[in-house]
Amino acid sequence: MIQAGIIGVTGYTGIELYKLLRSHPAAEIAWLTSESYAGQRLSDVFPCPWGEPLLSLAEAPLAEADVVFLCLPHAASMPAVAAVRATGVRAIDLSADYRLHDAATYQRWYDVAHTEPALLARAVYGLPELHRAEIAGAELVANPGCYPTSVILGLAPLARAGWLAGQVIVDSKSGVSGAGRKAKLSNSFVEANENLSPYSIGYSHRHIAEMEQELQGASGKWQVSGAKFQVSGGASRVAAIQSPNHLVTQSSNHPVTDFRIIFSPHLLPVSRGILSTMYVTLPAGVDEAAVRTVYGQAYDGEPFVHLLPAGQVATLHHVVHSNRCAIGLTFVPDTTTLIVTSAIDNLLKGASGQAVQNMNVMFGLPATIGLDT
Amino acid sequence: MIQAGIIGVTGYTGIELYKLLRSHPAAEIAWLTSESYAGQRLSDVFPCPWGEPLLSLAEAPLAEADVVFLCLPHAASMPAVAAVRATGVRAIDLSADYRLHDAATYQRWYDVAHTEPALLARAVYGLPELHRAEIAGAELVANPGCYPTSVILGLAPLARAGWLAGQVIVDSKSGVSGAGRKAKLSNSFVEANENLSPYSIGYSHRHIAEMEQELQGASGKWQVSGAKFQVSGGASRVAAIQSPNHLVTQSSNHPVTDFRIIFSPHLLPVSRGILSTMYVTLPAGVDEAAVRTVYGQAYDGEPFVHLLPAGQVATLHHVVHSNRCAIGLTFVPDTTTLIVTSAIDNLLKGASGQAVQNMNVMFGLPATIGLDT
Amino acid sequence: MIQAGIIGVTGYTGIELYKLLRSHPAAEIAWLTSESYAGQRLSDVFPCPWGEPLLSLAEAPLAEADVVFLCLPHAASMPAVAAVRATGVRAIDLSADYRLHDAATYQRWYDVAHTEPALLARAVYGLPELHRAEIAGAELVANPGCYPTSVILGLAPLARAGWLAGQVIVDSKSGVSGAGRKAKLSNSFVEANENLSPYSIGYSHRHIAEMEQELQGASGKWQVSGAKFQVSGGASRVAAIQSPNHLVTQSSNHPVTDFRIIFSPHLLPVSRGILSTMYVTLPAGVDEAAVRTVYGQAYDGEPFVHLLPAGQVATLHHVVHSNRCAIGLTFVPDTTTLIVTSAIDNLLKGASGQAVQNMNVMFGLPATIGLDT
Amino acid sequence: MIQAGIIGVTGYTGIELYKLLRSHPAAEIAWLTSESYAGQRLSDVFPCPWGEPLLSLAEAPLAEADVVFLCLPHAASMPAVAAVRATGVRAIDLSADYRLHDAATYQRWYDVAHTEPALLARAVYGLPELHRAEIAGAELVANPGCYPTSVILGLAPLARAGWLAGQVIVDSKSGVSGAGRKAKLSNSFVEANENLSPYSIGYSHRHIAEMEQELQGASGKWQVSGAKFQVSGGASRVAAIQSPNHLVTQSSNHPVTDFRIIFSPHLLPVSRGILSTMYVTLPAGVDEAAVRTVYGQAYDGEPFVHLLPAGQVATLHHVVHSNRCAIGLTFVPDTTTLIVTSAIDNLLKGASGQAVQNMNVMFGLPATIGLDT
Repeated sequence: MIQAGIIGVTGYTGIELYKLLRSHPAAEIAWLTSESYAGQRLSDVFPCPWGEPLLSLAEAPLAEADVVFLCLPHAASMPAVAAVRATGVRAIDLSADYRLHDAATYQRWYDVAHTEPALLARAVYGLPELHRAEIAGAELVANPGCYPTSVILGLAPLARAGWLAGQVIVDSKSGVSGAGRKAKLSNSFVEANENLSPYSIGYSHRHIAEMEQELQGASGKWQVSGAKFQVSGGASRVAAIQSPNHLVTQSSNHPVTDFRIIFSPHLLPVSRGILSTMYVTLPAGVDEAAVRTVYGQAYDGEPFVHLLPAGQVATLHHVVHSNRCAIGLTFVPDTTTLIVTSAIDNLLKGASGQAVQNMNVMFGLPATIGLDT
Repeated sequence: MIQAGIIGVTGYTGIELYKLLRSHPAAEIAWLTSESYAGQRLSDVFPCPWGEPLLSLAEAPLAEADVVFLCLPHAASMPAVAAVRATGVRAIDLSADYRLHDAATYQRWYDVAHTEPALLARAVYGLPELHRAEIAGAELVANPGCYPTSVILGLAPLARAGWLAGQVIVDSKSGVSGAGRKAKLSNSFVEANENLSPYSIGYSHRHIAEMEQELQGASGKWQVSGAKFQVSGGASRVAAIQSPNHLVTQSSNHPVTDFRIIFSPHLLPVSRGILSTMYVTLPAGVDEAAVRTVYGQAYDGEPFVHLLPAGQVATLHHVVHSNRCAIGLTFVPDTTTLIVTSAIDNLLKGASGQAVQNMNVMFGLPATIGLDT
Repeated sequence: MIQAGIIGVTGYTGIELYKLLRSHPAAEIAWLTSESYAGQRLSDVFPCPWGEPLLSLAEAPLAEADVVFLCLPHAASMPAVAAVRATGVRAIDLSADYRLHDAATYQRWYDVAHTEPALLARAVYGLPELHRAEIAGAELVANPGCYPTSVILGLAPLARAGWLAGQVIVDSKSGVSGAGRKAKLSNSFVEANENLSPYSIGYSHRHIAEMEQELQGASGKWQVSGAKFQVSGGASRVAAIQSPNHLVTQSSNHPVTDFRIIFSPHLLPVSRGILSTMYVTLPAGVDEAAVRTVYGQAYDGEPFVHLLPAGQVATLHHVVHSNRCAIGLTFVPDTTTLIVTSAIDNLLKGASGQAVQNMNVMFGLPATIGLDT
Repeated sequence: MIQAGIIGVTGYTGIELYKLLRSHPAAEIAWLTSESYAGQRLSDVFPCPWGEPLLSLAEAPLAEADVVFLCLPHAASMPAVAAVRATGVRAIDLSADYRLHDAATYQRWYDVAHTEPALLARAVYGLPELHRAEIAGAELVANPGCYPTSVILGLAPLARAGWLAGQVIVDSKSGVSGAGRKAKLSNSFVEANENLSPYSIGYSHRHIAEMEQELQGASGKWQVSGAKFQVSGGASRVAAIQSPNHLVTQSSNHPVTDFRIIFSPHLLPVSRGILSTMYVTLPAGVDEAAVRTVYGQAYDGEPFVHLLPAGQVATLHHVVHSNRCAIGLTFVPDTTTLIVTSAIDNLLKGASGQAVQNMNVMFGLPATIGLDT
């Protein structure tokens, strides 16, 4: 049994992780920490029957764990991860602190200098559908943000094919648990209920940085062909598509990073779930069959990606209380516009479920173990 | 036009009062105060187009108003009402500070000594359906609490008839705006949504004091007869009921205060509205016709009491966004148990609507003016 | 007092209209019809105290009204409007039947031939902010759809200035009352609650036709200048903008109808309210000041348009239970992308409130009478 | 692996059962039926990735299952259970058809004659906390109703102790999924949202019959002592309680069926969950310690009963998405009134979770297998 420690269990991602791990057939909980509630029990904080003690981080026997999950605010997680790694224990960090490979980019978006550049250099972005092999060997996994998970999974096949260019509109809607477990007027029931509020629109939400990093990284990585995609060496734009077998060869070195995400998050009056509705202008000549091929090949065999058949769109009910991402593809007639709808449960595939999926990969366990329901 | 000032406009009852008064045909807003947001404008605090300035209480030109509404927390309202009254301006206090006639009872429930006993002695409990004549002449009206409004209106006809005895179960459910506009974890969306929580059950909620005061005060005040009720001099229990004309005469001096309210509030996942489901054991011989007669006579002509026909129960949708109280009477077959369902909008009939109704009474205006929608 | 009849009062727009008219200072209700509930009373259908009888349409004394509001499904409204107009009484039709000026377009979108082309030719599209003068003299007003109201008000200033071109992404979210009052599994509580569902995306929702008609009609109608806009004769694109005074003169005859609405409605788990988040690529050289100028001039003095200051976005709480449309303008840095957020209450500004606003215009009443709260 | 068939999988209890069984370590799904959707796939009906075919009942290979779960409306389940039993396969019936031991009582409450009295006589009421031994050997288990589960578990310890007498007020609130998956105006989002509606109050809800049967059956079954309860032979009232060790001996043969449930269900605007707030007048001399003792002894070791510590009340968040029943005990000072709060997830402990719990008992599996999360 894998011994798992949770740092910061008294937030929404923490308690969700606790529930997943306590029923995980190959893991058990070693210890729990909470700075706010240290000295109390889990059942004092949540309406549950589990009386596990809550330690302060300083008290936690880090080394007794095989893996430590960190559910801390950004900036606070930086040194905590370092402390965990100093004991040699593997870490899965659910904060934003190790997601951006470039420390300067981190500082620009988060207004704080990165104090652990050496650790950052070794961190792996924990989206198994894109980085499974690296995650398997990682000592430190940076679990993706909730919005980025829905957006990156929804657009990565296009990026890899080199079909993501120009302005990409991402209109996302998130349940209130995405804002964390804290007393805040804007998250109070009366303020959020029977409401819908855009916020941080106009290129200001921090999650844009992750989306850009991952989608730019993916861009042009594939040569589209009738067979399974092959990752190509360099970034390049696909220029020729030959129907009907969608054989694609690279014919240009046009930079692939010339797309721009316009990201508009909205606070949605539900407890959990994110839906991203995304608008992409496809290159001329890329038809529905070609697009379905790249998505099919990208996610064939992925247990947690539910690619919807033609005519269906993703909704929150496809995914809440599951670790799945549902993706729908809708083509606007007489245009080259593709509407991608992508839905996840922000606390599962967008946080704690994905963290357990990463643990399964890191420890060589079956992909769906502990995540099946 | 009546000049109205509002002290503490940035809570939920304050903004509701502002909206009512700004469209009231016979009133206009003189000034607004908010200690938390003094110096800002109303539109900085609420999503609205109204840019009125927010003063601190110290800055407010109290004497320029004909009436002042106070929407402050209990204890804070005590001196503020005194300051308003010192200028000679009439006051309608929405806090609990002047509702309980007995200062000792106030201190027992609110854990603070009453500092204005002289003012308290002149305050009128502002439930127009029970105290219209006193309100008309009052200089200081204590606007009832939200739960008490639903409970007292639902039970007063029984109390007056002397039919309220023994244990009365009051199972109440309130929307979250009843908890006020403040950042508090238990009122956050994720905590309250998809939930239902009993709280302060077992004779501990402060609103019990108001219910007891008013229902004991009402007890035995009527002699039930076929005609309109006559208020009798003293408290006494009705002992004989003669069907079919429900002629009742007093025949005992049994004390009428021997009922006990068991009050169980629940936090309900709606923004506004209170429903109280109340269980009363009627005296032997009091039948449905008799009960309907006392309710009909109590509320005949009352514009804001909606007495439901047989077979109907009160729901929140009967009352939200109106100043009405809906009351349903359900008789349990083969028993003497009456179930009274009573619903109000906690921000209107339970607070600001009732405050305007009181203003209308105090200034001799038509009852429904400004409250009709 | 204007005598008003309501045909089809037992839907959500019908009852909302009833409530507005019963408290309208210059109108009173003449009669009500409902095919589904004829013979019953209003209080049998809704949780309300109003016992007005419900007639069948055949029984309704049409000619006793000064104005008739029709709240019928499309297709059913066509002959009903004709019957009303045959009596000479003015009609305000809340269905889609008379909104599209072109009968062929109507047939293409609604799959039914228009049987009243002569009446259609005289119908006025009832958006007062665009067509006030025509509404004032109209015998038949076609009240706009809910989504189109939010979209057209949000984009009309751009269209008039000739700045609407290319693909315009309209990502709209509507509360469930927009789907009407009927038993339907997809609108049931369990299906809609804690969910968010895109539907009819990819150029298939019927409301697109109205948006195109009105925005194309508005396109290039204005010459942008430092002064109030002047409506120009023909459609043309503004080609030169001179900061800082935003003087604009026509310099091309480029067709202005070459924008395309990509409209994505979503079913939102709230009872009422629509928020449209819209993405427009502005012509090069059109800056924030210019855009704010055209919006300011378009809506200066409009009592029901709440143009938000810089930095604010429209939310449902700006508008629900009011007849206002709130509009926010957010500029994406380093791009020519403008994000317009536009919110209305779908049952008020999106239906019954707007119908009363139209009545006020038609009868020469003050704009806000009966709509002030 | 236990082969499980589900009859009627396309209701809310059906799909919940499907989800539980597909991740159950010791069971697998043999086949699914749905009369409404026969010929389609599960993923055509629900937003899920599972493409299992839906058979008609007539097509279902009943005998290929080891156990069949029936999720049919009452009356429809009667013959279907008979058909299943005719093949010799064990049946767990989630309808009301086999819950009431007395056919006449069934007919009185459900207005239909019981056509399978022989089967009825062998059916076991499937509440494991009360009837575990009988369930273990049963061929036909009648899974309890949702309201009765919350009420019976909340009151059974009192009934067994003989302390349930007089009028017992049961004020219950249920989420909308309790009304089933069907298009019905009263369950539509707009009608149920921001509302709370009592219904079927005043001794008219069918679930009363189950509560009476089980609580009367339990009454006086125990002799209260300091040790674990002993089930006594006959029904009798406990007459003497000796503090402090709570030794109780039977001293009378007073009938124990003289309590009466006053049951008031309310429709609550949540998707799932039931909270019952219950008011019991305890016999004189029964103190808090005695009551806590009988509850503790009743549920000690029960994995799905969460007996809350003093000072806590049951809420929906204690139980939703779990198979637990949370029970809180609140004593009203200076009275003999006990308030029991009892919460369950109506689709899990109130239906499908309990059905799986019964299956586990019937097949000798560990109690919590497949139900742990």
